[in-house]
Amino acid sequence: MRTSIATVCLSGTLASKLHACAAAGFDGVEIFEPDLIAAPESPEEIRALADRLGLTLDLYQPMRDVEGVDEAAFSAVLRRAEAKFALMRRLGMDLVLCCSNVATATIDDDEVSAGQLRRLGDLAQRYGVRIAYEALAWGRFVNDYRRAWEIVRRADHPAVGVCLDSFHILSRGHDPAGIEQIPGERIFFVQLADAPPLSLDVLSWSRHHRLFPGEGGFDLVAFTGHVLRAGYRGPLSLEVFNDTFRQTDVLRTARHARRSLRWLEDGIARADGLPDPALVTMLSDSAAPVGFDFVEIKAEDASAVEAVLAAVGFAMRGRHRTKPVALWAAGSARVVINEQHARDLAPHLAAIGFEVDDAAAVTRRADELVVPRVHRRTYAAEQRLDGAIAPDGTEVFWAQAPDVGEPGWVAEFEHGSGPAAGPIDAVDHVSLTQPWQVVDESTLFYSATFGLREEGATDVAGPRGLVQSRVMASADGRIRIPLNVAPPIVAEQGERSGLPQHIAFSCTDVVAVARQARARGLSLLEIPDNYYADLAARTDLPEERIALFRSLGIVYDRSGDAEYLQFYTSTIGQVFFEFVERSAGYDGYGAGNAPVRLTAQGAQEAGA
Amino acid sequence: MRTSIATVCLSGTLASKLHACAAAGFDGVEIFEPDLIAAPESPEEIRALADRLGLTLDLYQPMRDVEGVDEAAFSAVLRRAEAKFALMRRLGMDLVLCCSNVATATIDDDEVSAGQLRRLGDLAQRYGVRIAYEALAWGRFVNDYRRAWEIVRRADHPAVGVCLDSFHILSRGHDPAGIEQIPGERIFFVQLADAPPLSLDVLSWSRHHRLFPGEGGFDLVAFTGHVLRAGYRGPLSLEVFNDTFRQTDVLRTARHARRSLRWLEDGIARADGLPDPALVTMLSDSAAPVGFDFVEIKAEDASAVEAVLAAVGFAMRGRHRTKPVALWAAGSARVVINEQHARDLAPHLAAIGFEVDDAAAVTRRADELVVPRVHRRTYAAEQRLDGAIAPDGTEVFWAQAPDVGEPGWVAEFEHGSGPAAGPIDAVDHVSLTQPWQVVDESTLFYSATFGLREEGATDVAGPRGLVQSRVMASADGRIRIPLNVAPPIVAEQGERSGLPQHIAFSCTDVVAVARQARARGLSLLEIPDNYYADLAARTDLPEERIALFRSLGIVYDRSGDAEYLQFYTSTIGQVFFEFVERSAGYDGYGAGNAPVRLTAQGAQEAGA
Repeated sequence: MRTSIATVCLSGTLASKLHACAAAGFDGVEIFEPDLIAAPESPEEIRALADRLGLTLDLYQPMRDVEGVDEAAFSAVLRRAEAKFALMRRLGMDLVLCCSNVATATIDDDEVSAGQLRRLGDLAQRYGVRIAYEALAWGRFVNDYRRAWEIVRRADHPAVGVCLDSFHILSRGHDPAGIEQIPGERIFFVQLADAPPLSLDVLSWSRHHRLFPGEGGFDLVAFTGHVLRAGYRGPLSLEVFNDTFRQTDVLRTARHARRSLRWLEDGIARADGLPDPALVTMLSDSAAPVGFDFVEIKAEDASAVEAVLAAVGFAMRGRHRTKPVALWAAGSARVVINEQHARDLAPHLAAIGFEVDDAAAVTRRADELVVPRVHRRTYAAEQRLDGAIAPDGTEVFWAQAPDVGEPGWVAEFEHGSGPAAGPIDAVDHVSLTQPWQVVDESTLFYSATFGLREEGATDVAGPRGLVQSRVMASADGRIRIPLNVAPPIVAEQGERSGLPQHIAFSCTDVVAVARQARARGLSLLEIPDNYYADLAARTDLPEERIALFRSLGIVYDRSGDAEYLQFYTSTIGQVFFEFVERSAGYDGYGAGNAPVRLTAQGAQEAGA
Repeated sequence: MRTSIATVCLSGTLASKLHACAAAGFDGVEIFEPDLIAAPESPEEIRALADRLGLTLDLYQPMRDVEGVDEAAFSAVLRRAEAKFALMRRLGMDLVLCCSNVATATIDDDEVSAGQLRRLGDLAQRYGVRIAYEALAWGRFVNDYRRAWEIVRRADHPAVGVCLDSFHILSRGHDPAGIEQIPGERIFFVQLADAPPLSLDVLSWSRHHRLFPGEGGFDLVAFTGHVLRAGYRGPLSLEVFNDTFRQTDVLRTARHARRSLRWLEDGIARADGLPDPALVTMLSDSAAPVGFDFVEIKAEDASAVEAVLAAVGFAMRGRHRTKPVALWAAGSARVVINEQHARDLAPHLAAIGFEVDDAAAVTRRADELVVPRVHRRTYAAEQRLDGAIAPDGTEVFWAQAPDVGEPGWVAEFEHGSGPAAGPIDAVDHVSLTQPWQVVDESTLFYSATFGLREEGATDVAGPRGLVQSRVMASADGRIRIPLNVAPPIVAEQGERSGLPQHIAFSCTDVVAVARQARARGLSLLEIPDNYYADLAARTDLPEERIALFRSLGIVYDRSGDAEYLQFYTSTIGQVFFEFVERSAGYDGYGAGNAPVRLTAQGAQEAGA
């Protein structure tokens, strides 16, 4: 399918938007009228620029409040429309969006509206223009695509068809299956937008919170399937009003948008019942990662991190034979300590690695999704290791899962000890702090590239504001990546300060790990006594168990019979470690304990 | 009335919150349980700290899901409650908030709930504790304060009363007049919060968007009047869940909160039907400003600003006799150009002055509101000039309006020319860019201190994001201050960059001003031809009038028969000037033209 995007999705001037859309690989654009009105370029210049960039100008939008009005008002509509049709001729455009009347409609009669659209169609035809009539979700009389189609059907004019917008249809809970009842050639245009589940009035929801496909709660694969089965063959176009994207770098957002359409086409291609598989492009098949290959911490001086790992029972498996990089491991958890090119950098989580079943396929898929790739040579130079840069800047690598035992690159590390046997057995999850601007882009990055799914979002109250948290996870739970959105004021105060990243290790016996850590004098995060008093009040845990937890700084969560035990190290630079034990299928992250943890970390930071 | 505030309103640790509440002048606090749980201090330490700071601990909150449950669940409730009552004894607290059941209620029967509250009351009494039962707006069965009171009435226990929260009552549109039917001694506590009009689900609205009194849409003066007429004499306490305040400096927010309660008490004191005027403190009476006294632009080198003022017809009225400060005037518009203590500063709007009928009263009122005061000696040293620092950092001064002619301080400027006669006659409005964190605080600042009213808010789409705009104005329109909230990403990029402040001058003949400015070669903001093509399409203005506007860069708005003409200078530093002409009572600001203006400014900035 051809792809298009409304200029209102993007920041900047109209000319800069056209450049970005072309660079991101779109076939065309919708011209959002206010962008043109504010542009210093003449319509002929815009047309010529689009020509040079290889972009088609697919839809001029919006024309408002045209139908359901009295005759006097309709005369003014025709006068205004004619000026716009003349403008479209200068732009070389032949399709205009007419939204169902919001402000001026006084006549709730399909025949009247159809007659007015027919007369508008006559006028449009003289300028070589066609009209795509769309039911806005908040239209005064017409707010259902089925009624818009009924009016278009009655207008019975070759220059009058419908525009279908996924937001206006799905936000009202209308069944999109009815789209298949509309002849494909009468669907003049299709606009796609996702949106998060919000119980906000539909106008505010639409104007501020739309998302690109794959980032919200709408089933756009199914929606677009209906459109294609109806016979529509025009462009799939994005129209996403989003307060954040409107502020973000235009090229970044254009690429992000293009990626969402590739993801969508892939989903459609994999769905059943498509009329013609050649319509859409399937991406390379890339199953979810089967495990964490490694996590990497980078710092000019990582010795404090290494001291922690040693204290909790990690084995130093060796130093890389060519680079200032060390490998620490416990069970299948591998922590790479990277001091290369790290001048002035405090310890931070720089990279994560996934084990995958077909690394080459992931690489192809990442390239097809136009994901920014990592170009640095890594410590695993001997083994090819492909990677991408996540929207928050974290490097994400993937490598072939070994058939048995450790991955081959481990052998590049020398002069260390053998594997450690102990209660730490794997990376449970990696929490990544997200600047608020990028979290939706991150969601799509992990879902489209790696097939991770977004689990429920939650808010955690910290002493410096609410932290929004959503988890990207594989279906089997072997990959879990909580994305924590820093409160904006905290985020402004410097890169990732105030909300550290962390790595959680799963343990078969977290009490034993904590005991050993304490015995070796490791600095752990102090949990206040008040926490344990509350734990005693709200649970029926035996006193001695609570006393044990208190003595070790372990916090506790429960869901039915499933239990979760956690303790945390102090923060080193911008990263800390967590040790967890899940029992009876506990599937959460102890969100109820996070406020206590955040407060203790704040106190530690203030005291440091 | 005694004043209190829930610790959940504020950022930071529990101890830092107590310090801030005391410093802001609160009498007591509500302890939000998670704050205590996360605190390293023992309950006895918290109690002793509050004692030392002179704060009472008024309410422990919340206890959830206590009533309407089966007997097994209620046993667990009693067990949990007893632990909390014991904790409260350690804290020296005697009142706990019980919210109506959200999660565990299975029995929708007032007798059952009343019986359970009665038994809870028996238990509480043994610990010297009383229970304030509150209907949450989203309670499973009980979500109306009248029903909560009915249950309390049936419980008929001296240790069981109601808590009334303005949000839970007013958000559901329940009539607060019914409060007067509740005996005052059975109202154990009153919580106050304002909120903006939002059509969001009530839970999200409550948890993220509450505001301090005077900042939202609730009539809290009337609400509190009902409470007092019922006979309630306990503290007026703020419980405001707000994502922004939770991130803001704790002392700043505490003072902001305290100010809102003083404003509220003043409103109550002025309302009719109060049982006892001595209950609340009335502030000094301070009528709205009657006009702009001056605006001040500060810069190391302000010559470019002075060149603009000269070109449009301002007269240089003189230089201050003791300071590097100049006065320019046209009609009653006075622009002070201040180069004192301005090293490295680009031209920016540093201060505004109001003419008031009783300057001493405004000063008293500002002090009563604990508004931060300006301490610098100003150019008007010979005339006393009191001022305050608005939340965005702008200095706001006030001075006695002269009985006739110019204010006395004008005589301090020497060696200039006399007043200029011409088409510029006054300051129409001053637009202040607001960091998003402070705009609600700014609203209260202008309304409480100066009696300005918030007019309708609007969003303006600029090339770098949506700009939220709200206008603070006096009833007669002589003072108009649009507060424009910078999109956060723009705001992060440096102080006020990207979204300049501006001063708009009203003209009797804006065409003449524009002609003269063009004739003198002044650099004006260029308006694209596309704007005028659209203006022709959407209005019936004569071609020659549009041609005139185009030749002068004038933009146009209309509301009924009322017209608004505007043109803008180029931006100098962080400020620009606008010249406007209102006819037939036009009362807006040409918001429809703002996107074109913002885009043109962006282009100018990119080209500069």
